[in-house]
Amino acid sequence: MDVYEAIYKRRDIRHFRSDAVPSEVLHRILDAAHHAGSVGFMQPWNFLVIRDPITKSKVHQIYAAANEEAEKQYTGEKRQQYRAMKLAGIMEADVNLVVTCDVSRELGGGLGRQTMPETAVYSTCCAIENLWLAARSEGIGVGWVSILHPDKVKQVLGIPEHLTLVAYLCIGYPVSFEKKPMLETLGWQDRVPLEDLVYYERWHNKELDVK
Amino acid sequence: MDVYEAIYKRRDIRHFRSDAVPSEVLHRILDAAHHAGSVGFMQPWNFLVIRDPITKSKVHQIYAAANEEAEKQYTGEKRQQYRAMKLAGIMEADVNLVVTCDVSRELGGGLGRQTMPETAVYSTCCAIENLWLAARSEGIGVGWVSILHPDKVKQVLGIPEHLTLVAYLCIGYPVSFEKKPMLETLGWQDRVPLEDLVYYERWHNKELDVK
Repeated sequence: MDVYEAIYKRRDIRHFRSDAVPSEVLHRILDAAHHAGSVGFMQPWNFLVIRDPITKSKVHQIYAAANEEAEKQYTGEKRQQYRAMKLAGIMEADVNLVVTCDVSRELGGGLGRQTMPETAVYSTCCAIENLWLAARSEGIGVGWVSILHPDKVKQVLGIPEHLTLVAYLCIGYPVSFEKKPMLETLGWQDRVPLEDLVYYERWHNKELDVK
Repeated sequence: MDVYEAIYKRRDIRHFRSDAVPSEVLHRILDAAHHAGSVGFMQPWNFLVIRDPITKSKVHQIYAAANEEAEKQYTGEKRQQYRAMKLAGIMEADVNLVVTCDVSRELGGGLGRQTMPETAVYSTCCAIENLWLAARSEGIGVGWVSILHPDKVKQVLGIPEHLTLVAYLCIGYPVSFEKKPMLETLGWQDRVPLEDLVYYERWHNKELDVK
């Protein structure tokens, strides 16, 4: 699939079919992640593949509690709208994947990380986007679940304290790839026009040619 | 270009030709960035396009000072190796692009950000990877410069204090797209085998079937 097509057709998936993700497909999308650039080539990521329904169920409980808590920040119609949305597919997705970042990893000898150490985590996010796009091209859906307390999830999975849990992803064949993001379709939030977000030469300057 | 091809052929570029990036190409890669997913569809990013050589030169000075400082962490042969590497193409790249994240942006009503507010910045990194891959498919190189004090760069560009400068990117037609990452070719750091980075069901477990 063309890279632009994958970018425009990528969705955040919460509705999964039950078919298994073949191991060679899973390997290809993990390898795509592993081929993201990383600061100083430190490759700070790990991938933890979860298929055990008991483990999924423990994480789902963490999600359900956090979601109940999150709902309370909304009132009236907005709360109804929030409650009606499906925001995770932990139990249904064939694979749950945790992506971590080890900021203490010594690969790359610290190159590029003196002034911006946060780039280790940023590199890990680039790896996640690679995986997301590669998955899309394989017809596989990915849903990023952030309504979780990462420390609780780390505890369930035995992930050492010093690691950053960057993402908890649900991966599997989706019921469908919708034309638009769910939050746009449901009227939760529209897409901002790109031109509102671009400046030239200096912050807040909208003129293309300042010289 | 196929998404896997873009992923495997993407490089971190530091050597640029002087040809200008056509504005329609720049628009396409920015639009690719803007179509990354974002937590709660908050679209927390802005893009600041810099072509003014005076501005580039100010940023280059910030880079040069930080790089001189960074070099001091290495000794002997490693320092020689560090000094010999070109780690930025600020002046040569036709476009310099700052990508910021506004964690205070209210779009999306905070959905998904109660337990993991850091996902706003993570979304911005996903946008950067979209841009990087779209650029690769256009024959355009991108180099991410992290050897910079972000606060100093923000000051030069008039970027408000509360915004996170996520990335300073050099964008332009590259002298070449090499087969391997520069740091691998130069013997600075090898790629780790993917299998060393993947666990199953629980941290540190390398067995595919634990059940």
